[in-house]
Amino acid sequence: MTPDRLRKIFDQVRRGKLLPDEGVELLRHLPFEDLDFAKVDHHRALRVGMPEVILGQGKTPAQVAEIFARLARHSRNVLATRAGREQFAAVKKKVRGAKYRPLARAITLQRDAETYGKGTIAVVSAGTSDGPVAEEAVVTAELMGNKVEHFYDVGVAGIHRLLVHRRALARARVVIVCAGMEGALPSVVGGMIGVPVIAVPTSVGYGASFNGLAALLGMMNSCASNVSVVNIDNGFGAAYVATLINRV
Amino acid sequence: MTPDRLRKIFDQVRRGKLLPDEGVELLRHLPFEDLDFAKVDHHRALRVGMPEVILGQGKTPAQVAEIFARLARHSRNVLATRAGREQFAAVKKKVRGAKYRPLARAITLQRDAETYGKGTIAVVSAGTSDGPVAEEAVVTAELMGNKVEHFYDVGVAGIHRLLVHRRALARARVVIVCAGMEGALPSVVGGMIGVPVIAVPTSVGYGASFNGLAALLGMMNSCASNVSVVNIDNGFGAAYVATLINRV
Amino acid sequence: MTPDRLRKIFDQVRRGKLLPDEGVELLRHLPFEDLDFAKVDHHRALRVGMPEVILGQGKTPAQVAEIFARLARHSRNVLATRAGREQFAAVKKKVRGAKYRPLARAITLQRDAETYGKGTIAVVSAGTSDGPVAEEAVVTAELMGNKVEHFYDVGVAGIHRLLVHRRALARARVVIVCAGMEGALPSVVGGMIGVPVIAVPTSVGYGASFNGLAALLGMMNSCASNVSVVNIDNGFGAAYVATLINRV
Amino acid sequence: MTPDRLRKIFDQVRRGKLLPDEGVELLRHLPFEDLDFAKVDHHRALRVGMPEVILGQGKTPAQVAEIFARLARHSRNVLATRAGREQFAAVKKKVRGAKYRPLARAITLQRDAETYGKGTIAVVSAGTSDGPVAEEAVVTAELMGNKVEHFYDVGVAGIHRLLVHRRALARARVVIVCAGMEGALPSVVGGMIGVPVIAVPTSVGYGASFNGLAALLGMMNSCASNVSVVNIDNGFGAAYVATLINRV
Amino acid sequence: MTPDRLRKIFDQVRRGKLLPDEGVELLRHLPFEDLDFAKVDHHRALRVGMPEVILGQGKTPAQVAEIFARLARHSRNVLATRAGREQFAAVKKKVRGAKYRPLARAITLQRDAETYGKGTIAVVSAGTSDGPVAEEAVVTAELMGNKVEHFYDVGVAGIHRLLVHRRALARARVVIVCAGMEGALPSVVGGMIGVPVIAVPTSVGYGASFNGLAALLGMMNSCASNVSVVNIDNGFGAAYVATLINRV
Amino acid sequence: MTPDRLRKIFDQVRRGKLLPDEGVELLRHLPFEDLDFAKVDHHRALRVGMPEVILGQGKTPAQVAEIFARLARHSRNVLATRAGREQFAAVKKKVRGAKYRPLARAITLQRDAETYGKGTIAVVSAGTSDGPVAEEAVVTAELMGNKVEHFYDVGVAGIHRLLVHRRALARARVVIVCAGMEGALPSVVGGMIGVPVIAVPTSVGYGASFNGLAALLGMMNSCASNVSVVNIDNGFGAAYVATLINRV
Amino acid sequence: MTPDRLRKIFDQVRRGKLLPDEGVELLRHLPFEDLDFAKVDHHRALRVGMPEVILGQGKTPAQVAEIFARLARHSRNVLATRAGREQFAAVKKKVRGAKYRPLARAITLQRDAETYGKGTIAVVSAGTSDGPVAEEAVVTAELMGNKVEHFYDVGVAGIHRLLVHRRALARARVVIVCAGMEGALPSVVGGMIGVPVIAVPTSVGYGASFNGLAALLGMMNSCASNVSVVNIDNGFGAAYVATLINRV
Amino acid sequence: MTPDRLRKIFDQVRRGKLLPDEGVELLRHLPFEDLDFAKVDHHRALRVGMPEVILGQGKTPAQVAEIFARLARHSRNVLATRAGREQFAAVKKKVRGAKYRPLARAITLQRDAETYGKGTIAVVSAGTSDGPVAEEAVVTAELMGNKVEHFYDVGVAGIHRLLVHRRALARARVVIVCAGMEGALPSVVGGMIGVPVIAVPTSVGYGASFNGLAALLGMMNSCASNVSVVNIDNGFGAAYVATLINRV
Repeated sequence: MTPDRLRKIFDQVRRGKLLPDEGVELLRHLPFEDLDFAKVDHHRALRVGMPEVILGQGKTPAQVAEIFARLARHSRNVLATRAGREQFAAVKKKVRGAKYRPLARAITLQRDAETYGKGTIAVVSAGTSDGPVAEEAVVTAELMGNKVEHFYDVGVAGIHRLLVHRRALARARVVIVCAGMEGALPSVVGGMIGVPVIAVPTSVGYGASFNGLAALLGMMNSCASNVSVVNIDNGFGAAYVATLINRV
Repeated sequence: MTPDRLRKIFDQVRRGKLLPDEGVELLRHLPFEDLDFAKVDHHRALRVGMPEVILGQGKTPAQVAEIFARLARHSRNVLATRAGREQFAAVKKKVRGAKYRPLARAITLQRDAETYGKGTIAVVSAGTSDGPVAEEAVVTAELMGNKVEHFYDVGVAGIHRLLVHRRALARARVVIVCAGMEGALPSVVGGMIGVPVIAVPTSVGYGASFNGLAALLGMMNSCASNVSVVNIDNGFGAAYVATLINRV
Repeated sequence: MTPDRLRKIFDQVRRGKLLPDEGVELLRHLPFEDLDFAKVDHHRALRVGMPEVILGQGKTPAQVAEIFARLARHSRNVLATRAGREQFAAVKKKVRGAKYRPLARAITLQRDAETYGKGTIAVVSAGTSDGPVAEEAVVTAELMGNKVEHFYDVGVAGIHRLLVHRRALARARVVIVCAGMEGALPSVVGGMIGVPVIAVPTSVGYGASFNGLAALLGMMNSCASNVSVVNIDNGFGAAYVATLINRV
Repeated sequence: MTPDRLRKIFDQVRRGKLLPDEGVELLRHLPFEDLDFAKVDHHRALRVGMPEVILGQGKTPAQVAEIFARLARHSRNVLATRAGREQFAAVKKKVRGAKYRPLARAITLQRDAETYGKGTIAVVSAGTSDGPVAEEAVVTAELMGNKVEHFYDVGVAGIHRLLVHRRALARARVVIVCAGMEGALPSVVGGMIGVPVIAVPTSVGYGASFNGLAALLGMMNSCASNVSVVNIDNGFGAAYVATLINRV
Repeated sequence: MTPDRLRKIFDQVRRGKLLPDEGVELLRHLPFEDLDFAKVDHHRALRVGMPEVILGQGKTPAQVAEIFARLARHSRNVLATRAGREQFAAVKKKVRGAKYRPLARAITLQRDAETYGKGTIAVVSAGTSDGPVAEEAVVTAELMGNKVEHFYDVGVAGIHRLLVHRRALARARVVIVCAGMEGALPSVVGGMIGVPVIAVPTSVGYGASFNGLAALLGMMNSCASNVSVVNIDNGFGAAYVATLINRV
Repeated sequence: MTPDRLRKIFDQVRRGKLLPDEGVELLRHLPFEDLDFAKVDHHRALRVGMPEVILGQGKTPAQVAEIFARLARHSRNVLATRAGREQFAAVKKKVRGAKYRPLARAITLQRDAETYGKGTIAVVSAGTSDGPVAEEAVVTAELMGNKVEHFYDVGVAGIHRLLVHRRALARARVVIVCAGMEGALPSVVGGMIGVPVIAVPTSVGYGASFNGLAALLGMMNSCASNVSVVNIDNGFGAAYVATLINRV
Repeated sequence: MTPDRLRKIFDQVRRGKLLPDEGVELLRHLPFEDLDFAKVDHHRALRVGMPEVILGQGKTPAQVAEIFARLARHSRNVLATRAGREQFAAVKKKVRGAKYRPLARAITLQRDAETYGKGTIAVVSAGTSDGPVAEEAVVTAELMGNKVEHFYDVGVAGIHRLLVHRRALARARVVIVCAGMEGALPSVVGGMIGVPVIAVPTSVGYGASFNGLAALLGMMNSCASNVSVVNIDNGFGAAYVATLINRV
Repeated sequence: MTPDRLRKIFDQVRRGKLLPDEGVELLRHLPFEDLDFAKVDHHRALRVGMPEVILGQGKTPAQVAEIFARLARHSRNVLATRAGREQFAAVKKKVRGAKYRPLARAITLQRDAETYGKGTIAVVSAGTSDGPVAEEAVVTAELMGNKVEHFYDVGVAGIHRLLVHRRALARARVVIVCAGMEGALPSVVGGMIGVPVIAVPTSVGYGASFNGLAALLGMMNSCASNVSVVNIDNGFGAAYVATLINRV
């Protein structure tokens, strides 16, 4: 029920074509969502330029291509995460301008390349193997209209490599930190800067890393108070949260 | 916003005291719940005679007494679970007719003693120590207007004690089974009867029982298909589910 | 030992062909189950029209086909769950009328299509990936003689999609809710309606979902009291419990 | 080593009072931190008005009082979290103006009451028992110079109570959500609004809640992408992250 | 229904006082256990001299005393495990001859001191702190009529202390091994001898021992094939199993 | 050092060819095991007829065949567990008389078929899927010279199928019970008989069975005191322990 | 059996007072440990000056005092860990020179104050709450004859505080690092230096620290290769290992 | 910034070519690492002869070959761990002198074969399946310039096989112990010798070994105080720590 529709009812009541009780009855039997015309739009600004997103994992190339093409009709930017080359091949045939970012395992369509974020998002990762998760965050953040700077291979066991980037990190408006194994990097980065840190535990490691559980627990217990945590390997989610912070 | 309130708006529109656009605006700015006059009442029958409930645990005697008294003003039956004698002493001073069921650790006020359930709820427990959880289920179910039959101390290691009650169990409309340690009883009971079994793992046990985790996992993996499970020691929840089944 | 057999013994004793002690001795040496003629049949009604069931997982196509065919000789309805297309191909050659439901991964034979359930079973699922588990529940419930209504893709992060179906859900006699990830849907649904909710955690998710453990724990701790839980991905079990509730 | 100190060395070298090699040697033997005069101050604005913080838990009243008094000499605002009444009694004797917030279990000294945050922080909690954690977040956020709005007792099993506050929530710049048991609330709130959600699992619950583990896992797996998570019961940390977001 | 009772029915049928159909009907309506006259007694020998047992933990002194006294009326030997001095004080007043074994925390009444076991049960424990569990096994085994030999403080980090007892261990018919911490002792003992080893993990340890879980897992994975395991701290259960083995 | 070797030293000392100090020195420098001639042989009887055993898992067919052949030179009976058909094919070429037991996945060579066990070992399994583990126990026990009786498919949800075998079970000298899922069967069997029960949790199940962990925990917490437990899927270990019990 | 005793046997054989066979027989029947005169003493140097140690936890003051006094008779240095003031009071009455170190909760008797370690042991701890564990390591290492340097409150969230001590740390021969919460400190320290790091997870933290499990897992997964780990809160064990390294 | 570079600045200041303030400014804007000329070299000796290391796992043959070749240009010894034959084939084409150690799954290039370790490193492993992890430790230790002695197949269930090597073990300067299943070997070895023991849990086992978790927990709880632990299957890390100890 749009406000228009509602106004018509009131008009009819006014003009005596509808009794007040009939108006009540009409409203009573409308499905819930039609009543809900009072949609909030305070946060619309926060959503402009956000891409539509597909999770590629577990879908066939044909399925990904079909959904991607459908979304591309209505949305300027589209992102498929956790997608392989075969899925990209299928998408490319249907959607002109789609690109593949192999390290991030992401298919992107970026027709709106405007910058909506107010500052820079820094993405930091501990080791080479954490790269794909960090890159998923980078690609996502870029497609959401942020300036992104990345700092790779700056694990805590070589603290000087991280310290070199101190100033650059300090310029960011929000920092994403991806780390597997002991997951210690967010604490160190968090202690060095004064902005929010989004920590992403990765499933990198073996043995007692238990597929990222050790890193996740480490990050939950971070002694730096500016750290909050998303799911294991969830580079996308971290970029999404960071984007919202970068737009407020 | 009650229908009455809505009707008045329509009346005012009709009598020209309110313009249609003003009517739209009025509705637009009403908080959500006021619009929601179209409450469903299909299940009202299922709720008649349900007591108001307080979780005694973690509340002072004074707090329990105050809440209990307040609820007793509007509701005919009131139940406080996980409540001690001191809490009851405080309630008794404020609410005439309140009773204490020590094994169940429950304070009850039952002014509506009608039977709403269509059949009998059977409550089965494995060992003496499972008694309090089973008794919480019994008291809850009774207060909710069910006929309840209980079968205590019929653990799986003495299967004959359980078999004795086969016929009685078979007469129930729904069965609650409380067991700690290995949590095997729901599977055996479930295999003997053809009605839903609500399994309640209890924290009874030591060592590798891990406060009810072993029983919970056992019940989740029950080889009897008519078993579903509620939280550890949640006798109240089991009785609540059973009551709903007994009323449908 | 049927009552007939027992009566003959009494007859022989009566006619002097058997001494009382010989009668005692005869009974003493009969195996247990023969003594057990006193079978309860209170719940027979609850079992009429229930299909025979095969777990397809871990069985070869030949094995599934053989068991399916054997069961189809004595039973009107047969269901094989967690079965692939190859298993269905093998069944189809042996059993006329067998059908395959690919999303549910189920092979069905339905020669008795009567409705035994008294009301409707609603099946709700959170996301697309929870589909197969929900569909297993749907197919199972249908084959067991229930009217089934399904509501897909109504996850808690888009609560309005769920609210739209409030009235429809409120008409159901029992509701099955399938959800992976955080497993929050049963709580929300449970709070909206007054009938029993059977919650099915699914293994959908990654990272800290730990193959459904996060959803399972979430559902065990549901703040809605009308929720009980079955094993991870156990769509069949949920439908079985719901069917029993729908028949009582 | 301040720039001043360094300038003096260069001066002495210039004036020939120090040989270049001696200058090198002086720098070589200075401890690390003295070299580090190039401190970054980009984020100074983010730290103005932040209180000094003490963790009261595990400290004697005397210890808390002594630390509190020392911090109060140099800092305008001081906060002691997880502190009891006895600890407050000790503080009150030493520090004029210290207040106690019993529900939050916090001792506060607020001499700088300016508002530094740009928008409002909303704090939402699921049940009464989650109150202390939510209140710790509220008190912390207030002391850090934020406008704070709280919404208590809006658990997912009564979704309408939450929906009532939809507009108010939508006005917040960042939302903190505290929930125990199944930890589902952040997903629902996250789906309703377009700003970052900081989720705080609480140890509220029993049995399979495993002291907040169930809630933590649920929140890590949230299907709403704007959710990130802090440690169990860490109301302070959530407020700290929210404050940083509210200031960027 | 005893055979006598059954014989009477046949007699009545024979003498025409009861029709065959009436006999059938009589049997049909007898409760299950009455039909079950065909009790097996093959293992009676294994049970002669077994004491009645009470778990003292969680019972008041009065409760323990009352149960103990009741059992003492019908049974020659009675054992209360996990019982404290206060419980013993209460028992002593009611039951003459009751003794207290403080290390084992057991109250015993032994009026039948005959030896029923065919060989010796050896009880081995790793450290001083494992003593109470080992002693519970010793007391239980003695009261069940076994010769028991104990070997204390022979942990694996001082392997020579264990090797000293090799011959003595080799004479046992079954060996109980109690160990906390890493739970390695059963493997070493198991490798030295050719009889069954009953392993008892104890909750001795701290940190990563997780109340006996580390020891339990260690023992489950024993590389010695003659090891089987009972619950954490379950000295009683180990002695029970060992007694059965010693009697076969 | 054999006794012979030692005697020669004494002879030499006696005949003056060796000084006492030289004798001391000789012993001092002998490696440990040579000193250890004092081997215990009390348990030799328990070991006669025990096969040599190979774990097939993780070994190539060639490796299995080579080890099998080597063992077959010195030992009358040889057993390879967890072995596939390819491994058997390789063994068969090298060792005449080797047989394959497909369900048990075992390769056997049995040239000594004497019965060493004093009674019967009963092997009970809950469901069809537990078959391979149970069969591994059966084959192992047979090869170790025991009479074995097996009872398959007698899960707790169909308790009557188990009760039928009550007498047969009661005749066994030791009982092995294999069960996955909730692992409840050992408790029920344990309560029915008076001999030791060796429980084998199997990895049968899905979801919350966590590869046998649920069954393992269930069995550790068995309310039947005559139950002890071996590792998940360890049919071999259970048969080994049972064999030792059957020989004492 | 000392070499002396063995020499006598040879003497007797030589002098014909003992037949060779009798000599063999004598040896055969000696208990194991008597044969084992060939004790290794290669590592004696590593053990000189090591104190005798008592675990105070779980012992009464009287017990601690008695053991302490007994050990003090034969050993120059004695250490009681995890001991309280009451235990110390009891010790002090019996043993002159015993001292109490309250932060470490250790009772010490140090009559041999020689330095046996070749270099310095550095003990680093992350936060104030890790102090007692670190101090236990310090006291233990000192009593074992090491020079010890400690660096407190140098957690990873304030990395500059740690960097200040870089040179001092680099001078140590082995470093002990104690940290709770996320347990990240050993990785950072390990990356800064080239000597072995002994990591001690502490139970400091709350919520998802799970009593030190998070720290333990973090340390097991350290990306610095020179880190090895001891049990949670095991300051003593870390000092013991470090002492051995410092003496080799 | 090398000291040379710094000296030049001072020279320029001295010669008036640079103002003191310009000197300050120059230092202020240098990146962190350039300031850090004061590198510690106390531990240089500990690092001489250490190979460069590549983790082969998860890298393509081409990637491994390329990195290996690059490292071989600057480093005398190179080690690739967890590398397969295909990866070796690729390396061999590019790097002359590269060798493959199949059991260790390691590719080695050893152009510096000098011995840097002061004593011997002993590597002990429990069972055949632990071989690869132990061999990784052996190869790593050898390439790092240590004399290595290995003792395979000396599990705790055959304690005599271990005791045979007691003297040889006692000669080592540090001992690495690899064990899966119950992980008991480090405790036994630790108790026999007086030098540091590095324990490596292996993922060998099945069922309740949980991929090495049981062994890890066992080793963390070792009752021998000279044991510290590295990650599951981390033979490389153990050898690295042992090498550092062998060089101090």
